[in-house]
Formats: sequence, structure tokens, C-alpha cells
Amino acid sequence: MPSQETWNWNSSEAAPRLGRLLYPKAFYFIDLFLHFLLGNHDPNSRFTDRPGEPGLSPRARIRAFGRDRATLSNMKHVYLDNNATTRVWPEVAQAMQAYFTDDFGNASSIHYFGQRAKAAIDEARGHVARLINADLAEIVFVSGGTEADNLALRGIAAIAPPERRHIICSRIEHSAVLATCSDLEARGFEISRLPVDSDGLIDPADVRKAIRKETLLISIMHANNEIGTIEPIAEIGQIAAEHGICLHSDGVQAAGKIPVEVQSLGVHLYSMSGHKIHGPKGIGALYVRRSTPLKAMLTGGGHERNRRAGTENVPAIVGFGIAARLAREHLDRDANRLTEMRDRMEASLLDQIPGITVNGKGAPRLPNTSNIMVDYAEGEGLLISLDLKGIAVSTGSACSSGSMEPSHVLTAIGKTPDEGFGSLRISLGAMTTDSDVDTLIRELPPIVERLRSLSPHYRRA
Amino acid sequence: MPSQETWNWNSSEAAPRLGRLLYPKAFYFIDLFLHFLLGNHDPNSRFTDRPGEPGLSPRARIRAFGRDRATLSNMKHVYLDNNATTRVWPEVAQAMQAYFTDDFGNASSIHYFGQRAKAAIDEARGHVARLINADLAEIVFVSGGTEADNLALRGIAAIAPPERRHIICSRIEHSAVLATCSDLEARGFEISRLPVDSDGLIDPADVRKAIRKETLLISIMHANNEIGTIEPIAEIGQIAAEHGICLHSDGVQAAGKIPVEVQSLGVHLYSMSGHKIHGPKGIGALYVRRSTPLKAMLTGGGHERNRRAGTENVPAIVGFGIAARLAREHLDRDANRLTEMRDRMEASLLDQIPGITVNGKGAPRLPNTSNIMVDYAEGEGLLISLDLKGIAVSTGSACSSGSMEPSHVLTAIGKTPDEGFGSLRISLGAMTTDSDVDTLIRELPPIVERLRSLSPHYRRA
Repeated sequence: MPSQETWNWNSSEAAPRLGRLLYPKAFYFIDLFLHFLLGNHDPNSRFTDRPGEPGLSPRARIRAFGRDRATLSNMKHVYLDNNATTRVWPEVAQAMQAYFTDDFGNASSIHYFGQRAKAAIDEARGHVARLINADLAEIVFVSGGTEADNLALRGIAAIAPPERRHIICSRIEHSAVLATCSDLEARGFEISRLPVDSDGLIDPADVRKAIRKETLLISIMHANNEIGTIEPIAEIGQIAAEHGICLHSDGVQAAGKIPVEVQSLGVHLYSMSGHKIHGPKGIGALYVRRSTPLKAMLTGGGHERNRRAGTENVPAIVGFGIAARLAREHLDRDANRLTEMRDRMEASLLDQIPGITVNGKGAPRLPNTSNIMVDYAEGEGLLISLDLKGIAVSTGSACSSGSMEPSHVLTAIGKTPDEGFGSLRISLGAMTTDSDVDTLIRELPPIVERLRSLSPHYRRA
Repeated sequence: MPSQETWNWNSSEAAPRLGRLLYPKAFYFIDLFLHFLLGNHDPNSRFTDRPGEPGLSPRARIRAFGRDRATLSNMKHVYLDNNATTRVWPEVAQAMQAYFTDDFGNASSIHYFGQRAKAAIDEARGHVARLINADLAEIVFVSGGTEADNLALRGIAAIAPPERRHIICSRIEHSAVLATCSDLEARGFEISRLPVDSDGLIDPADVRKAIRKETLLISIMHANNEIGTIEPIAEIGQIAAEHGICLHSDGVQAAGKIPVEVQSLGVHLYSMSGHKIHGPKGIGALYVRRSTPLKAMLTGGGHERNRRAGTENVPAIVGFGIAARLAREHLDRDANRLTEMRDRMEASLLDQIPGITVNGKGAPRLPNTSNIMVDYAEGEGLLISLDLKGIAVSTGSACSSGSMEPSHVLTAIGKTPDEGFGSLRISLGAMTTDSDVDTLIRELPPIVERLRSLSPHYRRA
């Protein structure tokens, strides 16, 4: 009798990648290195800041890093990574609370509890629809931006006639689109990945050139998550309409930050996420224009008009709805405030630090996003050094933090990994204050200087 | 130039079903009918219960039904539909709160906020793993039970060699499994749907007989959501192991209600849900036994060891973790208490009401589930009448509430829709009290009598 282990056909797809396992360890050693170099001699170190504990050993400091919650909680934290995720509005969290413990019903139930849940979903759907000027019936709630992108691409691909198996996307799409395109490619689809210019902009003429009679779908993001470039979706929408091709846009970073009108963009499908606009995680939406055919990816009950099975996540939907409403109400004010704040920050950093560049500065950009390239300073080193000061930024997408590969977005705008630069993504949010930005403006220049002083390649200007 | 409307190839798949659209209206008229018949003459009506408003017109009562929240909130509500969803434990809701507004980081971020989120996920993963005696690395968090079932079936099917395209399931699986099997069938898989006996039990010998050399996967639920029957998974696991076939079990209704040991069950894949055990909605888990190959359904970032892309839903994962810990701690006590409570309820109802049967009574059953068949009384009528008394039960799965078709589970145990019976699913939960059950015991008999008195087929015994 064969054992259970006989069930082991090609398991290569599930094997954990060694690199991913080693990655946390690599960071540990970078931490160690930085703590030895910086921790001891920096009078502003968070450890020497605390009265009574000026002389922690480097090892003790390392133990404290990321482990001693009490220590870390005493710091003032500055969060400038709002493109990764955002703090939930207090009123959103409060509104959700009732749907955990009081109106906890299953929205598909017929009774009182179910009706309460269903009414709450209907209201939230209206808020989300209004954020992008869509109809209620065009909003499909899903578990987040990644599922929205997957549903858009896979949902269209699944009903593609055999003669239309060509998809156009850009090289700077989010991994949820790029990885899904690669997956479809392995199943016989052809993918055209369009280049972008040095600011991350797609040329609509390139879209037009890429279209063939087999083209099924165009998927171009509305705003890039790493550098904030806003793509000319309306122009691409015109081209798609001329050719009768379905257009999807990943609006995860755009909806709630800039005005979005799905009709004038000409999109058939548009992805949104709750937790990028101070709503909860685990909820997103796909706009599906009326009469757009789409095959459900999750099958089961007939939820979401047979487009997404699974018990409705009522509290998260309610929270997303309120976050969408707040984003819409504050859109203009926040956009102006954040643009000013970001421009002030960029001007100050450019003034203080030689050898830095702002990526995407020549293109229309999201108000909140700043991607700064620092010559002769490694990105992870900058990130960790800022983290030690209590400032949270990122080097790129949080979703690819584990990949160890250079950002595909920076590569696409012509920055090769050999250039010896580091990049920082600084993303502001509705809760970011002038004081937060002032802290970054104060802390970053000496960190860059210190890291450069360690670089054998750096020649002082 | 063709208009955008030229993009309209085969759209039949996305067309809304007329039945589903008409369904709420059908209920409206059933409500109307019942209110006219029952509302006026029932001295215990919720409307006449309220001082000062004894004489609401039937139309006013209908307007109030499901609409006037203040009115309904004044009622004492009894929730006996815990297989549809459950009230979140207050401590679960409280623990989640911090991850909305304080530790709101993206678990993939490297900085302080990310580390806090990641640590919380690791802890929760441990709780969920311990609930079914699995290893941490074997738990993949997903958006719920439906996604867990879809990932299990589609994730295995996607890497099936061409010569192994046969799947065995039962006729009483949840729609998340049945609909997914049908979807795979349309893509060339062969599906064997095994019958069950009159208690809803699968015969392991039938599983053995159904196995062919092409068999890829067996998917049999651990406990049925409508009648609570616990299937002989360990015996089926033995058979699967003998033949080197992958075994999936939908444990959404079992995990947290009965002891689950994935090793002794012999499953490779096991689905769980948070909101069935007083945790939050929008979160579930798929147990994936070590070295089981599985292709991700959602692609993007490398989350969940490349098995499920998408920003981790940190608050929901934390809540699921605590709910899993509480379920494990209270498992024995709750199982005994709920079994006693259910048996007392069934005995009292059988004693009071002639012509009722308890489905699945001859099989091992979940402690909390009771499926009662009532001759000569329509299920929806019973449900709505109970709802008017503030008691929430269901006729079957909430997920198929919209289908208007007879329950596939009751059909499978030999109850044909022509028999003129109604069925009620009464599902208790950890928060159900003796008083809740007493209310049902008091209210149901007169409702059955009243509905039967309207039935032309009913001959009084």
C-alpha cells in the first residue's frame, strides 16, 4: 500500500524560495551593521534620547529593535508610507464596531439581522459608487485591490473567444496586474508590456500601436504606486473605445486622491482598495461597467450579483463606504494641502542634499507621493536609518518588499540597478501634518551624509 | 468609428438572472400576505406589544417591517442562525480595534509599523494552527470560507496533469464547492457527486468505488451546514492515502465546534472561516499540508508564501486568531452545553408539535445544529413568522437564500420538494442562552398551528 507521500507530483511550484527565507536574516545583519556604526556615536539616537538609559550596548540595542514594544511605543512615530497602507479614520473604526457586535447579521439572511446588514451594504455601495461617479449596480465588493485586479483580468480572460488572446499592459503596473498577466501568458495569452518615459508616463500612441485584431484587454494603472505618475487614461479610453477593446485601470492609488469619473475615463473595469484611503484592509471594489461581461473568479453563493461569491464582509464594507465618503468630501482640500506639503518637502531636501533627484517630477503626479533617488546611498540603509528615528517610509511597493529585486518601476523609467543609488518613497496621507514632514526634512540629510561617508564610491562634491 | 458598445461579445454569462431580481419582490408579497393574516389578529404581535400603538394598519406594519429601525430595535432579538454567521466576541472586536487606528501598518513593510503588524499576524496564525493541530506554515489566510474552498479546488486543478482530471465530491457540499466543481466540469474535469443516506452521511465505501486512476482530488465536507451531519473524514482520509489522492475537506462549520486534528483526518487541505466562530467576517484560512502543491488563485505580491497575494487583513487576522483561541479553550464545555440545549429543544418541539421530524438525528451531528422538517407548513412562512417575533432562524444556507430552489441538501437526503413540508435550520452558538431556546420553544408551536390552519392539504391529526 503506497504511503500518503506518493501524492507528490510536480511540487516545484509550491517550493519555498530560498531567497525569501534568507531575506529577514539579511536584514538582521544590515541592522546589526548600522547599529554598530550609527547607534553608538549618534547623540540623537533613540536609545540615548531616553533618560536613564544612555549606555545600552549595541547588542541590547539590536534586541530592542523591533522587539521591545514598550521602548518603541515611547517614540514619536512619523508615518510617511501611506501608499503602503493608511491609518483608519477613527469614525470609520467606530462605525464598523457596531457591525461586529450588534448588527452582525449575514447580509444574505432574510431575517431582521440580515436586513440590517444588507441595508448597511447598500448605503456603503452608494458611497463607493459616488467616489468614482458610478452606479450602485456597477460596484462589486472584493477582498482588496489585488483581488480587484485579478478579477478584472481573469474575469475577462475566462470568457475570451479563442481568437482574442492578446492583452496590453504597462511595465510599471502593480504586481497584482503584472503577475496575473504572466500567469495568463503561461496559459496561452500574449502580453504586450508597454514602456514608459523617464517620468513613468505611458504614451497613448504606444497603446494605439500595440493594438492588434486579437487584443482583448488593455490594463493600464491610473496612478503609479511608487512614483505617483498619473497616466493618461482618458486618452487611452478613447483609443480602446475606437477599437472596441475592454479597458481596465488599476485605480488603487488614484481613487480618493484625485477626482475619478469612470465615464470620462472610458474604463470598463476599475480597481479600488479600502485601506489606501484610511478605510479598513481586506476590502476593495471592482467597478464593472454595465453590460460588461465578466466571469466570477470565486464561485459559490450568488453574492454580488453572481460576480463574487462569499459572505459579504459587512463591517469592512461599511468602513470602506465611510472612508470613500470622507475622501470625496475632502478631496480638493487634501489634494491642495498635500501637494503644497510635498512640494515644500522636495524643495527643502533638494536644497539640503546634493545628488538627489525627484522621480516623475515632470509628469502629472499624485498629490501625496514623492519618490526620491539618492546617489551613493543604499535604499534599505536609508529606510532602516529613518526607522531608527521613528520615521516610516519605504523603498518602493510594500507588496514586493520581500523580493530583493530592484524596483521594476525604477528600472522601467531607466534607472538601472548598477547606478549605485537608493530610492525612497515618501507618501503622505490625509493625517500627515507639517510637523511630520519637518521631522523628515530634519532627519534625512544627516542620514544621507553618514551613509555616503561609508560608501567607497562616493566623492564628496 | 465603432462605438464603445461594439465591445459586447457573448455577454450571456454576465446577464443578471431575472429570478434573483424578482426574489425580493416575492418576499415582499409573502410578507404582505402574512401580515394581513397574522398581524391583525395576533395579540402577541410585536406591534401590539408596544404601548400606545395597538392599532397600526397592516400597511403601516409592512412599512415598519425591516425598515423602521427604532421599532425593531425595541424588540428583544433571539439569534438562532449561528451557522449563517455569528456575533463577534467583544474581546475579539476590542483586540481588532488597535489594528485599525494604532498598529495599522502593512505587514509587508520593513519598518516599525510593518513589524508590529507582522508580529500580530504570526501570533494569530499560531492560534488558528492550534485549533486544528497544524503547523504555522500550513495556514494560508484567505478572505473567507468560500475563497478557501475555491483555492483548494482551483489551486489543485490548476496543476493537475492532463491524465488526472477527475474529482469526487458529495451532493451535500456547500455551494462554494459545488459551484466550483461545476465550473471545473465546464473546463473538462469529470465530477463524481456522491449520494448520502437519509441522515446526510456519506458511505466511505462509495468513495472507494468512485476512485479511478484519473482521480485527482476528493472534496468532502467535514460537517454539513444545513443539517450538521459530521462526515467520516478520517475513514475517507485512509482511502485517499491508500490511493495517493489529495483530500480536501470544507471544515467551515466544523473547526471550532468539534475537535479537529488534520493529521488524524488525513486531509491535505482544510477550509476554515472566522465569522462562523464568533470572529470577524472577511477572513478565513486554508490549511495546506506541508509539501502539498497548490497554485495561487490570487497573484501579485508574494504574500502567504506565494499562495495568496494581497495585503494581509491584519485586524481580521488578529480577530480570527483570538476567536480560534477562544473556540479551542471552550470547545468541550460549549459542545456539551449546546448538545444538551439542542436536545432539550428538539424533545420539547417533538413533544408539542405533531408531524415534525429532526433531520440527521441518526448520524453524528454538530452540537449546535438542528434541522427540523415541518409537515404542511412552508419554510419561508415559518421563518418570517418567527422573525416577526424577533427570532432569527433560517430555512437552509444563507448563501443560497436568493435561489428560490429547494435545498440541495434536503433533496439529497430524500426529501423531494413536492412533499409539502417546510424546513427550519436552528443553529445555536456560544452566546446562545437557555432563555433564547425557551423563547423558540414557546413561539414556534402556535406559529406552526396557524400556518397549517391555512394549508388546504393539512388534515388535523
